[in-house]
Amino acid sequence: MKIGLIGAGRIGEIHAKNIFGSKNANLFAISDLNFERSKKLADEFKCMPLSADEILKNPEIDAVLICSSTDTHIKYIIEAAKSGKHIFCEKPLALDLNEIDEALKIVQAAGVKLQVGFNRRFDPEFSNAKKIIQENLGEVLQIKITSRDPGPPPAEYIKISGGLFCDMAIHDFDMARFLTGSEVTEVYSMGSCRIDPQIGNLGDIDTAITTLKFENGAMVVIDNCRATNYGYDQRLEIFGKGGMIQVDNKRPHEIILTSQMGSKKEKPLHFFLQRYEESYKIELNSFLNSLEMKTPIECDGIDGKMAIKIALAAQKSLEENKPIKL
Amino acid sequence: MKIGLIGAGRIGEIHAKNIFGSKNANLFAISDLNFERSKKLADEFKCMPLSADEILKNPEIDAVLICSSTDTHIKYIIEAAKSGKHIFCEKPLALDLNEIDEALKIVQAAGVKLQVGFNRRFDPEFSNAKKIIQENLGEVLQIKITSRDPGPPPAEYIKISGGLFCDMAIHDFDMARFLTGSEVTEVYSMGSCRIDPQIGNLGDIDTAITTLKFENGAMVVIDNCRATNYGYDQRLEIFGKGGMIQVDNKRPHEIILTSQMGSKKEKPLHFFLQRYEESYKIELNSFLNSLEMKTPIECDGIDGKMAIKIALAAQKSLEENKPIKL
Amino acid sequence: MKIGLIGAGRIGEIHAKNIFGSKNANLFAISDLNFERSKKLADEFKCMPLSADEILKNPEIDAVLICSSTDTHIKYIIEAAKSGKHIFCEKPLALDLNEIDEALKIVQAAGVKLQVGFNRRFDPEFSNAKKIIQENLGEVLQIKITSRDPGPPPAEYIKISGGLFCDMAIHDFDMARFLTGSEVTEVYSMGSCRIDPQIGNLGDIDTAITTLKFENGAMVVIDNCRATNYGYDQRLEIFGKGGMIQVDNKRPHEIILTSQMGSKKEKPLHFFLQRYEESYKIELNSFLNSLEMKTPIECDGIDGKMAIKIALAAQKSLEENKPIKL
Amino acid sequence: MKIGLIGAGRIGEIHAKNIFGSKNANLFAISDLNFERSKKLADEFKCMPLSADEILKNPEIDAVLICSSTDTHIKYIIEAAKSGKHIFCEKPLALDLNEIDEALKIVQAAGVKLQVGFNRRFDPEFSNAKKIIQENLGEVLQIKITSRDPGPPPAEYIKISGGLFCDMAIHDFDMARFLTGSEVTEVYSMGSCRIDPQIGNLGDIDTAITTLKFENGAMVVIDNCRATNYGYDQRLEIFGKGGMIQVDNKRPHEIILTSQMGSKKEKPLHFFLQRYEESYKIELNSFLNSLEMKTPIECDGIDGKMAIKIALAAQKSLEENKPIKL
Repeated sequence: MKIGLIGAGRIGEIHAKNIFGSKNANLFAISDLNFERSKKLADEFKCMPLSADEILKNPEIDAVLICSSTDTHIKYIIEAAKSGKHIFCEKPLALDLNEIDEALKIVQAAGVKLQVGFNRRFDPEFSNAKKIIQENLGEVLQIKITSRDPGPPPAEYIKISGGLFCDMAIHDFDMARFLTGSEVTEVYSMGSCRIDPQIGNLGDIDTAITTLKFENGAMVVIDNCRATNYGYDQRLEIFGKGGMIQVDNKRPHEIILTSQMGSKKEKPLHFFLQRYEESYKIELNSFLNSLEMKTPIECDGIDGKMAIKIALAAQKSLEENKPIKL
Repeated sequence: MKIGLIGAGRIGEIHAKNIFGSKNANLFAISDLNFERSKKLADEFKCMPLSADEILKNPEIDAVLICSSTDTHIKYIIEAAKSGKHIFCEKPLALDLNEIDEALKIVQAAGVKLQVGFNRRFDPEFSNAKKIIQENLGEVLQIKITSRDPGPPPAEYIKISGGLFCDMAIHDFDMARFLTGSEVTEVYSMGSCRIDPQIGNLGDIDTAITTLKFENGAMVVIDNCRATNYGYDQRLEIFGKGGMIQVDNKRPHEIILTSQMGSKKEKPLHFFLQRYEESYKIELNSFLNSLEMKTPIECDGIDGKMAIKIALAAQKSLEENKPIKL
Repeated sequence: MKIGLIGAGRIGEIHAKNIFGSKNANLFAISDLNFERSKKLADEFKCMPLSADEILKNPEIDAVLICSSTDTHIKYIIEAAKSGKHIFCEKPLALDLNEIDEALKIVQAAGVKLQVGFNRRFDPEFSNAKKIIQENLGEVLQIKITSRDPGPPPAEYIKISGGLFCDMAIHDFDMARFLTGSEVTEVYSMGSCRIDPQIGNLGDIDTAITTLKFENGAMVVIDNCRATNYGYDQRLEIFGKGGMIQVDNKRPHEIILTSQMGSKKEKPLHFFLQRYEESYKIELNSFLNSLEMKTPIECDGIDGKMAIKIALAAQKSLEENKPIKL
Repeated sequence: MKIGLIGAGRIGEIHAKNIFGSKNANLFAISDLNFERSKKLADEFKCMPLSADEILKNPEIDAVLICSSTDTHIKYIIEAAKSGKHIFCEKPLALDLNEIDEALKIVQAAGVKLQVGFNRRFDPEFSNAKKIIQENLGEVLQIKITSRDPGPPPAEYIKISGGLFCDMAIHDFDMARFLTGSEVTEVYSMGSCRIDPQIGNLGDIDTAITTLKFENGAMVVIDNCRATNYGYDQRLEIFGKGGMIQVDNKRPHEIILTSQMGSKKEKPLHFFLQRYEESYKIELNSFLNSLEMKTPIECDGIDGKMAIKIALAAQKSLEENKPIKL
């Protein structure tokens, strides 16, 4: 299985490293808008620095990983599908539902597989949570998802991010669908700019609470914030007829120090690169495994589309200050 | 300080016991609709079994504790105020805001003190949480309140309860005001009947999520349910610029047993009588202390009114499926 | 049931307060070497200030609580037994086994009951631990007891204390017997002066580890220290064929504060008055209940004797640096 | 850096995998008494299956990893040293101190480096514990090490293991030296056969408590058992003048499930392969790094020798039932 990687930023580098360390795939080529960057990584991971175009056209390459900026996703997905390559694409697929629909049609017609990069589904804490829901909780009544970043991104990032719901909460919308196994019927969100006035000046919010109703009756509440003073906060709580489960943050180590200050543990792992390190490996293995065993993709194009659909509805709810039906 | 107790049900008995054990007050008389009941408790706590009317008219009595059914609260408050007695009244004051306003006017005119029974403010975990907010958290961004009962009440209770928001969530609305130190500007709630069809047949819900916006910018989310399979679930989480605090449930003991089943702690304390035992003592002491020291009541009539105001708005939000401004 | 209290120091005052708050007993008189002290407490708890002698001879008094200094215990026990009074005596009974044996004989001959003040047996965490041993653990293999004080006592106290083993570890020796339900066959201890040179100058130690072998095969290790920088450290760990149980310290509240400093809980409760407050009440109730129901004392004279026997052996082991058989 | 691996059992395979995944070393050859085994692993990790002799004589090989049975360690160390190869040897070096001394002399004369496989020093929880001791605790007073296996090994293993102290507790003796940074002056141990009569029949014990005195005044107690019903139990507790630290077990995931059974976490990770997976990687990197950077080995021959010296003293203490000076 030969892999071409398009877009070698922070997340692209993680995937490059994971393919390199895998026995089941070869990293064939890396492309990046910054050629020096692609050359450096290609050197490190013993593959070729090519352009995106060269990767998409190279008949030796079986699958592409699209880790470039969001506005290029649809274009690359369509080209890859047309040249018969399997596709792994980072989230979000796009910010426009029509574009996504069109791309998914082409993917389906081409008979290639498409996985979307909602890596948190593959985190062992969260995938075990899903298992415990199925084995112990039965009917889900309420889910609470906490998702707070350690600090706000730069203004440049905010500008092209699509806003808090499409950029940040989208992971949580996918998590809600993953955990409930159901579809959202209605969204209500409240939000404001409490942390970073720059974000407010750009018309975005940094603090929000979103509530979701699901077809199967589950209610989900998601709280987001672009900053904390204690690192990355990624927790879940699921309440069902069979009990309640709680998933806590992970820390660099779990040692308790008791002194005149009280009993203390370290802060949570700093950010997603640390917290979700393992999930990226498992996500990649899942993709490779689906290709090899010809089994269904665990997080596919529909999943990619539904998350953005919820995010857009949340944005609309915020703007109109009323619940939005999907 | 001589005290008359009106209404000797489950909660009245707790107060009777706490007055009896206090060095700062004498339990003078107990009344109950069921005279046998008042006689039995009067015997046990060495005081007189009187009627409510006799208590309200007895010039020896300095203060009354009103623990009778909700529909009698306003009447007794007014009578007590008119005979110059200080008043402690269980929540909710009433289900009608005009009645409350009228009673509060009379109380004020009479120059007596009125405390409302939001006992959770006096729970050491929660009052310490408030202290830590003030000392460490600074500006509050988001609060999450979990409040789930161990099992649904009987249909008879549901019928006269005023519904989930006025009966159960009202404690949480007060807690939200207590913790934020601010007033609600808008309420949105979702709810349904997931647990007990009888509750649905009576037009009530048993599962709800309510979100509140506050004047100071704080966002609060409250999740309620009339039943769990693990007992009483009473937790808080407060996120502010200075960090995050979590208040967990309390258990009969905190021993961890590790065996082939994993590592296990006991379920939370079963219900409010166990969980809030200490808060009732501290609440009573606070009332007695305010009377003795002539200091302001810690949870007064306005607090009693505002909580019901939020509850009625939540009910309206549920019915109209839109956010309601206060 | 009329009670006379002999010795109204810190621990005597706790018992006075608990008798006063009990429905099942009347505090009749209080004596103390310091008459002002006994008068003050007698005033507060509405009883008479008498001398020890007057209490021991007063025919109205049914039972005495001996909370005076250790060197007076045996004398008062014997006198109380001879005047037919039931006896509760603080630990240790005495530092001399022959004296204890003689007193126990007289108590037995008099047909009165004698309870020894190993209050920790009545702490809910520890009594539940015992229950879990019986219900879940089966054969006990290893027990670890941690018992550290928040700070060293004054030199005057050390001088008459009987040393770390007889004064401090004696509670832990009793706990080991209580938890194993068996008798010690051999003791080995190591100890040194690490904290307070004054203690070393008085020939005592402040830091020790003691290992015990029991008849039923259980091994117990106890670690003691006269000081920590984090308060009172009172923990248990019991390992048996059916699993392992852990009893942790208790704190003023259990709130977790997560900030840039990490996640933090309060220090443990400061010292025995706070940590064991509840155990003293339950201990007293157990004594009163045994008298009223004529049931066996839960912690009797033999228990008082065996703990001091182990303590003396531990002292000898330290001095001779070898295991001592009992 | 070319590596030869001698002994491809369970632990040898772990090292083979870790060398294979490292960028800083090449796995050159694998030998095993069972040639089929070495061929299979050589295939998997793309290297040659050779005999131990061929590896020790091959001039291309820079370093050997000795993972064969304990009785072969000294012979291979000497041969490797004589052919100028750096050496990583699994614990214990040998069961005879004279043999060890002789081998260490030859290693020193040859100027090669020798690392001993006390992998737990490299576990992130334990290495962070050491760091916290240095940064926060200051003078160490007492250390408690819990080390229990999930189940007894087969009789064949027990026979050649050297006994519980040399085979199992040796890791804990090394940990005690690592954490205190000091040398043992005296050992006292108690032990018995409580779990598996077969172990008793072979003259060995399965349950033990060992206490150690250190030059710097620290007291250490180690409790061992060959079996639990809850998996592998590997915990530390360190008490010093600056506070106390606790290192708990790790679990497959940390999710809490609260239901009618109480609140539950998974059992600890099953055994050393799971629990110490990461430590083996860090240990290997440390070895490779010491070779590359010509820096001191982090766990050297003296460490290997001292641990066995303590183990032999513990065995003697058990046999003679008295403390043994080192």
